[in-house]
Amino acid sequence: MRYMTSGESHGPQLTVIIEGVPSQIELKAEDINEHLARRQKGYGRGRRMQIEKDQASIVSGVRHGKTTGAPITLVVENKDWTHWQKIMGAEPLDPNEETEMKRQIQRPRPGHADLNGAIKYDHRDMRNVLERSSARETTARVAAGAVAKAVLRHFSIDVLGHVQEIGDIRAKVPENISNAELRSKTESSEVRCYDESVEEEMKRAIDEAKNAGDSIGGVVEARAEGLPIGLGTHVHYDRKLDAKLAQAVMSINAFKGVEIGIGFEAARKNGSEVHDEIIYDPNQGYARRTNRLGGFEGGMTNGMPVVVKGAMKPIPTLYKPLQSVDIETKEPFNASIERSDSCAVPAAAVVCEAVVAWALAEAFLEKFGSDSLFDIQKAYEQYLEKARTF
Amino acid sequence: MRYMTSGESHGPQLTVIIEGVPSQIELKAEDINEHLARRQKGYGRGRRMQIEKDQASIVSGVRHGKTTGAPITLVVENKDWTHWQKIMGAEPLDPNEETEMKRQIQRPRPGHADLNGAIKYDHRDMRNVLERSSARETTARVAAGAVAKAVLRHFSIDVLGHVQEIGDIRAKVPENISNAELRSKTESSEVRCYDESVEEEMKRAIDEAKNAGDSIGGVVEARAEGLPIGLGTHVHYDRKLDAKLAQAVMSINAFKGVEIGIGFEAARKNGSEVHDEIIYDPNQGYARRTNRLGGFEGGMTNGMPVVVKGAMKPIPTLYKPLQSVDIETKEPFNASIERSDSCAVPAAAVVCEAVVAWALAEAFLEKFGSDSLFDIQKAYEQYLEKARTF
Amino acid sequence: MRYMTSGESHGPQLTVIIEGVPSQIELKAEDINEHLARRQKGYGRGRRMQIEKDQASIVSGVRHGKTTGAPITLVVENKDWTHWQKIMGAEPLDPNEETEMKRQIQRPRPGHADLNGAIKYDHRDMRNVLERSSARETTARVAAGAVAKAVLRHFSIDVLGHVQEIGDIRAKVPENISNAELRSKTESSEVRCYDESVEEEMKRAIDEAKNAGDSIGGVVEARAEGLPIGLGTHVHYDRKLDAKLAQAVMSINAFKGVEIGIGFEAARKNGSEVHDEIIYDPNQGYARRTNRLGGFEGGMTNGMPVVVKGAMKPIPTLYKPLQSVDIETKEPFNASIERSDSCAVPAAAVVCEAVVAWALAEAFLEKFGSDSLFDIQKAYEQYLEKARTF
Amino acid sequence: MRYMTSGESHGPQLTVIIEGVPSQIELKAEDINEHLARRQKGYGRGRRMQIEKDQASIVSGVRHGKTTGAPITLVVENKDWTHWQKIMGAEPLDPNEETEMKRQIQRPRPGHADLNGAIKYDHRDMRNVLERSSARETTARVAAGAVAKAVLRHFSIDVLGHVQEIGDIRAKVPENISNAELRSKTESSEVRCYDESVEEEMKRAIDEAKNAGDSIGGVVEARAEGLPIGLGTHVHYDRKLDAKLAQAVMSINAFKGVEIGIGFEAARKNGSEVHDEIIYDPNQGYARRTNRLGGFEGGMTNGMPVVVKGAMKPIPTLYKPLQSVDIETKEPFNASIERSDSCAVPAAAVVCEAVVAWALAEAFLEKFGSDSLFDIQKAYEQYLEKARTF
Repeated sequence: MRYMTSGESHGPQLTVIIEGVPSQIELKAEDINEHLARRQKGYGRGRRMQIEKDQASIVSGVRHGKTTGAPITLVVENKDWTHWQKIMGAEPLDPNEETEMKRQIQRPRPGHADLNGAIKYDHRDMRNVLERSSARETTARVAAGAVAKAVLRHFSIDVLGHVQEIGDIRAKVPENISNAELRSKTESSEVRCYDESVEEEMKRAIDEAKNAGDSIGGVVEARAEGLPIGLGTHVHYDRKLDAKLAQAVMSINAFKGVEIGIGFEAARKNGSEVHDEIIYDPNQGYARRTNRLGGFEGGMTNGMPVVVKGAMKPIPTLYKPLQSVDIETKEPFNASIERSDSCAVPAAAVVCEAVVAWALAEAFLEKFGSDSLFDIQKAYEQYLEKARTF
Repeated sequence: MRYMTSGESHGPQLTVIIEGVPSQIELKAEDINEHLARRQKGYGRGRRMQIEKDQASIVSGVRHGKTTGAPITLVVENKDWTHWQKIMGAEPLDPNEETEMKRQIQRPRPGHADLNGAIKYDHRDMRNVLERSSARETTARVAAGAVAKAVLRHFSIDVLGHVQEIGDIRAKVPENISNAELRSKTESSEVRCYDESVEEEMKRAIDEAKNAGDSIGGVVEARAEGLPIGLGTHVHYDRKLDAKLAQAVMSINAFKGVEIGIGFEAARKNGSEVHDEIIYDPNQGYARRTNRLGGFEGGMTNGMPVVVKGAMKPIPTLYKPLQSVDIETKEPFNASIERSDSCAVPAAAVVCEAVVAWALAEAFLEKFGSDSLFDIQKAYEQYLEKARTF
Repeated sequence: MRYMTSGESHGPQLTVIIEGVPSQIELKAEDINEHLARRQKGYGRGRRMQIEKDQASIVSGVRHGKTTGAPITLVVENKDWTHWQKIMGAEPLDPNEETEMKRQIQRPRPGHADLNGAIKYDHRDMRNVLERSSARETTARVAAGAVAKAVLRHFSIDVLGHVQEIGDIRAKVPENISNAELRSKTESSEVRCYDESVEEEMKRAIDEAKNAGDSIGGVVEARAEGLPIGLGTHVHYDRKLDAKLAQAVMSINAFKGVEIGIGFEAARKNGSEVHDEIIYDPNQGYARRTNRLGGFEGGMTNGMPVVVKGAMKPIPTLYKPLQSVDIETKEPFNASIERSDSCAVPAAAVVCEAVVAWALAEAFLEKFGSDSLFDIQKAYEQYLEKARTF
Repeated sequence: MRYMTSGESHGPQLTVIIEGVPSQIELKAEDINEHLARRQKGYGRGRRMQIEKDQASIVSGVRHGKTTGAPITLVVENKDWTHWQKIMGAEPLDPNEETEMKRQIQRPRPGHADLNGAIKYDHRDMRNVLERSSARETTARVAAGAVAKAVLRHFSIDVLGHVQEIGDIRAKVPENISNAELRSKTESSEVRCYDESVEEEMKRAIDEAKNAGDSIGGVVEARAEGLPIGLGTHVHYDRKLDAKLAQAVMSINAFKGVEIGIGFEAARKNGSEVHDEIIYDPNQGYARRTNRLGGFEGGMTNGMPVVVKGAMKPIPTLYKPLQSVDIETKEPFNASIERSDSCAVPAAAVVCEAVVAWALAEAFLEKFGSDSLFDIQKAYEQYLEKARTF
């Protein structure tokens, strides 16, 4: 499986082509829309989340509710495109429109791709950068992740993202909590957080940041249950699955850190407190007594839940301005404001869930074949039986 | 540029093939051996580090001290191979040798690839897993990184790895320290640490772990100076360079966390304390006043030093045993001991440096061409001038 | 550069996402539509070519007539989708619609993907295969090729496809003809053929096949002018550019053979009649006296025109039926008829041009960078000067 | 599966790293050496083939005769390396050695990579090009192909290369010949040709070319038996297996054409004479009455033998000189002579066999998993049963 995304924040649409999805997977637009809606929720979102209810259309690769094996195309229209047709249009402007329409963005915002992208791609109008670097693109990644989740669902593999920290407020989550338990709280929480006791505090922190013209980040976690032993491999560095997860999570806009299992904490403990003892049960096969390593040993899944955390920095769009430089005048200025959220951490939890689901589904299909659900199921069953009695 | 590594811990040799290195790069065996030696140093290493002085031979791709553009092959022989020829030989054993030689490892160690790999690859003798999952493989990655560093050297780009934490002891390192300053301390430190005031403490912690039959991890950092603006890109998720660095670092044996810049700390601060203000100087071009984001905005380098941290868990090979299960008898046992180090964090800093150097060199050549040094230099110079005056 | 295509023959649309196109390339919808129209022309096409005038919309990656560096999305709607919404819809059917709508195709056509794809992807209704295996997909490839041509145009590189043979009738084309000369004839020829003296004969052969309920194939050629020396490389087998061209051309629907330069003829001549003598001129640099090797030596371009031929088998959709087997009844039958062309060779010449243009543009950008037109131009100019005076 | 090769013609060794080979595959050095020896045979080879008996060492990835899943490394030493140590050494020369040792090759040979590679990689000494562009590299590819064949052997898939034409002399080979029948003749033929009636003629043509100071090419064919239906796919252009075969074959040194099945002949026939009728037998499943399409429909295998032809031009190294230009003096000269064969077509048949075996094995493992022989066998068996009764 592989996928490409395209589309600008204020262009006509986002598009995703997903190639290599097995045939016979059940997939409906609502399977995707459910997750697009989850991404749009969350305390602290700006106005845009209210005006646009993202809806995906499936325009290839699915027939009568099932995948065919052909590439799947998902389209999410940008609802306010009508207001942006001239500014963002693909066709050249008339000479008399140029002055009106080409209001260049020449003031790069700190913490954004603006300046780097402008220099790299020779854009004097940095709108050509920010329209693509915008977190709007994560909508497409959530859509792709929803397809991955539809694949995993057939094998009883479940992935769930939730919020661990907002600002400096940390949720308490029991170490061996199930996704079902988590979901029972996080899906109804305004901050997508399991720990109800800190929810109000988190919302207050968001409000405070907002009122101060500031923004606030956090830590999200994705947990995956039901995985077999042996996804990924130790044999070559670029096929380690934990490393692929790290790339996936770090590639989410504004993410600056990734942890597997207890992560950095593992660096500060003794070996005997970090590793997970191995146990065996004839009915279940091998398991671990604890899960500090977050489901990975040797770059492979060990059958325990995969636990991945990601750190999101505060959204760089600032009401409280930072200094920058106008690229035309070379004069300093205080960084301008685009419409923005003060906290996007709950949404980021959904994005994190999506990219983790994708990476796991990809590894799963690499191991068990990727043509038809029927063949994969057969291969999977015999492997599970082998692993159980190994 | 791409590379593959091969070789078992007790096989005849490690091999690396590196493809896509430009021609005319100066490269000698000693450029590689220097870094292999750095990897072997460090307080807390076991006996093997003393007996084997790793030496790379260049057996293709380099002629009279310069690369030709053809694939480069590096070979590092395992010095004690003579003692392992029967146990690790490629050829089938005689029937009468089999009993003697095939002393199967049937007891998986917690925290290792042993059990996962055995199930995945159908090995009842887990030596077939651990020989490859061993951190011995990082020798090959350091060798590849040395070639990447030889490329970067031509463009005055420098990468240096050092130790930030061992166990719960943290070094203090000035925020804007140069690699030259760092190097002046770290290269002579037994724990590859800049902060002399904690060196003794770190060594004591290593000793304590060792005496307790335990092991100890830590945090390492790689810093890269001299990078241009615009390596990596915001336009597609899988071409973000910070995410590729995350994969590279997480793929090092025993790593469980990665941070870019201030990493997880960014999640706990307000936006105004996280982002780096943009400044301009006609002679230098654009810069940032601070470097909390570790040299990245929008998945691209911003011209500031790249700063990447990685968390290494304690080495799982344990003197203080953890419980496991014999895969033949299915009986529990206390995990057996292989010869081991009690702390490999200083070595891991060199590995981290190597994988970061590789990822940066790869991105550099992708941007400026990868055929001949001469052409790349021309392309680079004109880009630097463009960026400076943008 | 990379691209993915999606879409079914009777689905709502074809989609192409093209990633890695440099910024500042001039690109308008009409640049693409011009080639879509060329593909739809040609003596011997069926009804569909008349009813559908393919039009591409650019829905991302281009702003005000220039590429931004972001992924480009092209959409070509299928005009008769309205009639196929139920049969090809993505959503599950109502139970009462199922009988009406799910008229399964259970009779595989010889020469098609039908049966292989059905077994691979577990489809009892082979419409799920043929909708994607249809040559309708080549529309998407022509669109991608048009973008590649827009890139190459900035560097005065031109690619042109034309027809060399239809059935057993061969055109005579002067060995060293320029693309301008070729174009002066082929674009106005109904069979996209330079040699006017055989045009009527070709049309007659098409008519004869049609009247006999049969179909007819042919040989097409793509020629590329203006290429620098050194695209592709000899250093590693999977980076040889002539081999990539072979893959590109063989992947066109119904293609069974590929030749570079004089191709198979080279196998039947002496070495002294096959190789091209090297000459030098201070103003032009190095050249070849002849071009039997079709612009390639050592897997690299040698500065001469690239000449690639492809053999297309007759369209397998048959009015003159061949025997096959019904997959439900297992009874033999005479293969059924889908609406079809009797000869698609002129269109295939445009597709061949497109895939060759793509492969060359990809190699070009790999060598000279792929971020911004300005940077690439600088790198290219200095390289040309180096090559000229080498 | 993937592999990289390295090594120069007169360097110390050729090296191959093969990554992604399943575990538990039986593999011994002699499995590889057998094919290295086959490549070295053949009427018309030069002196080098006599002096060097190529021998592969397996230095990783195989233990006690079976693959472990770890990367496999093969080393083939160049026997006359001792005479080339100074000329081809990796280390810089002493200043006083430089004059002696650096006898630059400044005269590019027509038909070789020499000049293109020199300009691309900035080499004034074209030895830096020709040492790598030499067909010596095909030794490494034959070694990789031998590993692929070892994989395929477990699934009763057999690939065999043989000679169809030398110069303008064509062998007659029955259309539906089995590999066993072919092998019974070709392995003992000096020209690796099935048709004994033309063998003497072929040898005479080789002698004539040699005596005339010329060289001679030919056409080779690889046939693969025992393949399942559905390797490769129609769903995306870059996953079509026939196209991958075309790349593989065209990437062999000196190859200028590729055909699948009847190839170019298909372009010159009517559709009803080209396509293969489909038949069904309850015990065998689906088959084709003929095999003109060479085992492929829709980019996928159809269960019939895969038949691929490749056209090799005469070896460009010439005794009968062609004009070229000295790159230092810019003066024309008559192209110099390197030691050479007058005909390498029989060897090329072995190389063609190897690259076809590789591409098929890769596609096979992609479909049925690639971790352990046991798992693959299980998945394969259930698929065969499904296909048979589909």
